[in-house]
This record gives sequence, structure tokens and C-alpha cells, in this order.
Amino acid sequence: MTVRHERISVATTRREETVDITARVKAAVTRAKIGDGIVTVTVAHTTAAVFVNENADPDVQKDLLTSLERAVPRDAKYAHAEGNGPAHVKAVLIGNSVSLSVREGAVDLGTWQGIYFAELDGPRERNATITVIGD
Amino acid sequence: MTVRHERISVATTRREETVDITARVKAAVTRAKIGDGIVTVTVAHTTAAVFVNENADPDVQKDLLTSLERAVPRDAKYAHAEGNGPAHVKAVLIGNSVSLSVREGAVDLGTWQGIYFAELDGPRERNATITVIGD
Amino acid sequence: MTVRHERISVATTRREETVDITARVKAAVTRAKIGDGIVTVTVAHTTAAVFVNENADPDVQKDLLTSLERAVPRDAKYAHAEGNGPAHVKAVLIGNSVSLSVREGAVDLGTWQGIYFAELDGPRERNATITVIGD
Repeated sequence: MTVRHERISVATTRREETVDITARVKAAVTRAKIGDGIVTVTVAHTTAAVFVNENADPDVQKDLLTSLERAVPRDAKYAHAEGNGPAHVKAVLIGNSVSLSVREGAVDLGTWQGIYFAELDGPRERNATITVIGD
Repeated sequence: MTVRHERISVATTRREETVDITARVKAAVTRAKIGDGIVTVTVAHTTAAVFVNENADPDVQKDLLTSLERAVPRDAKYAHAEGNGPAHVKAVLIGNSVSLSVREGAVDLGTWQGIYFAELDGPRERNATITVIGD
Repeated sequence: MTVRHERISVATTRREETVDITARVKAAVTRAKIGDGIVTVTVAHTTAAVFVNENADPDVQKDLLTSLERAVPRDAKYAHAEGNGPAHVKAVLIGNSVSLSVREGAVDLGTWQGIYFAELDGPRERNATITVIGD
């Protein structure tokens, strides 16, 4: 069995944005040289997240951020004094890890699926960990 | 170590519905013939999702779809032009994978837990991948 | 390869609260004696959940519960007759499992990250399963 970790840097440029990291996850899986297993991508931040969704129309990413803002409005009342209260909540709703199957050496993604890093309180220097486990 | 993948088809019949796939996940775990490990269920779609929740009262599934509609309303404004903008957002909120422990050959589910495929932009022919990894 | 499960009890004291289980997850990983791999924490309940977020300011946890209440209000209409309809929905939105990398024997958590059990319909005696898989 192989276990291989790779840490990638993600430099974000706005307060909220999503960054496509699919190619970097695929490259890490290739470097792990496994046939079958799983890959887990995690973020070690509390105001960032990771998810899988459409990679074709950028409007989908825009709608995600708009909808999260509607569900967790910035102008509501938050106890946390740093001003990024809603960013923490959004991070929990999206989640801090995704797991995907690796089949015959490739990440098992649908035609329209990409893996995205979600910045919710940027801009910042961020990172994500890609762990590949399999045979 | 064993890694075993199984792809299942899920034919949905409505625009939004949840489909209980617990028995199919359990069967895939049995066929993998492992004692201990984990099972990961993923969907390769961007307007569908997978989750674990109550399998006893169907009203719980109904409440989930109603509550998601309230939080991500269909009649709000979405940039994505295909009309399924909210379905993408709901898919991210629910998530596209679940992981569960496998103990002594069985999926470690609570008494009231079932594994559900969530259709958010159907009806369609969908699929899910079940990956079992363990010893 | 090693696969090791550990079940922990979580006794909650309020209807809604979050309980920091980071130390217990770390201890389980240490006892598994692996170098590299992943750890998955799951809850076998349908009105409880598990997530990773800030462990420094307790107000972040408070904001999470307040925001979830705003997005999934208790005084809305639910079909489920037991009175805990919104708890099921909140559990799906947070999720019933988290996966984290294990590197050089330690859980790969950020400085401000803790692992939390979310009680959404307490108080109750609850439990969570920690599964460590790796080499």
C-alpha cells in the first residue's frame, strides 16, 4: 500500500473566490503512482473550504458565493469580533475535505466536475493537503 | 490491502428526490470481502449529491428538500443560464461524497441511518461510485 | 497496512451545542501507531454531525449554531412529527463525517482548527467512530 501526501499553495486575490485545483490534484495522484484507491483533499484553515462542482460555466461558482451570502448574510449579527464570522459558518457548510475514488490511476471525476478551493476571508496565502492512499 | 470499486446506476423520476442506496452500498461492501476499513460513496455529477440521514420517516427526506428550497430559493436570481443554478448550490451544501467505517465486514451505520442519493435536477439517469478500502 | 477503529462517547448537555473532540481523535491516532494515512470521524446519528473549524474563540461555535438556526428556522413548517425536523436538516448540511490526513503520526490540523461533535437535538448520550487507516 502507498500513502503519499502533497501540500499545495493557493494564493487568493479576493475576499471571496473559488480556485480550480483539479489539475494539481490530478498531478499529485499521478505522482503517487497507484492504480486504485482514494484521494482526500483537506484544507487546514477555518475560513476556507474545498468542494467539487461544475468547471464549465464560471457563473456556477459566482452563484455559489451569492447563495451562501444570502443564506449566511454578512450584515447579520455575529458574536465573533474579528469581522469574519460568516466566513467560518460558510466554511463549515461547504466542508473542509473531499474524498474521491482513484481508478486505474486516475481521479474518478465526472465530465463537468472540478475540484475547487473556496476562499471565504481573503486575500491570503493558503494551502491544501492532497493525500493519496491505495495500491 | 483490498481496494474495490463498484459503480451503481440510479434512475431518478422527479426534479428533486432522495433515493435510498443503503442496501446497494452494503452489498458492495460484502462483495469486497474486507473485515475492517472504510467505504466512500461519491457522485460524479454537479447537480446531485450523497448524504447519510434518517431512513425511518420519509417526512425527514421531504423536510430536507423543503428546507434547502427555503435556504436556496429557486425564484432568486442566478447567473447560470441553464435554470438549474440552485441545484448546483444545493449539491455543494449537501456534498458529493460520504465516508463510513467498515467494521467486521459491515458498514458502521446507526439504527436510523440510511445512505441517500440526492437528485436535485432530475429526472435523469445517474450513477454513484462505491469504493471500499481495507483489510 | 493498519486499520484501527475506536468508538468514543459524547454526553451532551444542551439541545444544541458543539463539543471539541480534537484531543480524543489525536489520542486514537497515536494509539493506532501509523506514520502516514488518513483518519475518518463519523457519527452514527441523524440529528448530530461532525465538522472541523476554529478552536480559539468560542463565539465562532455560537455563531455557527445561530446561523444554522437562521437558515433552517425551528419555527418554519416541518412534516416530520417528532419536533426535531430542523435538526435532521442541519445534520445533513454540516455532514456526518470528516476526513483528515495523518502525517508522521500526527493529525494534519491547522493552528486554529479543532474537530467538533455537533449536537443538534440533545441532550443525549452520543458516540462517534474514529477510523485510522495507513502504514
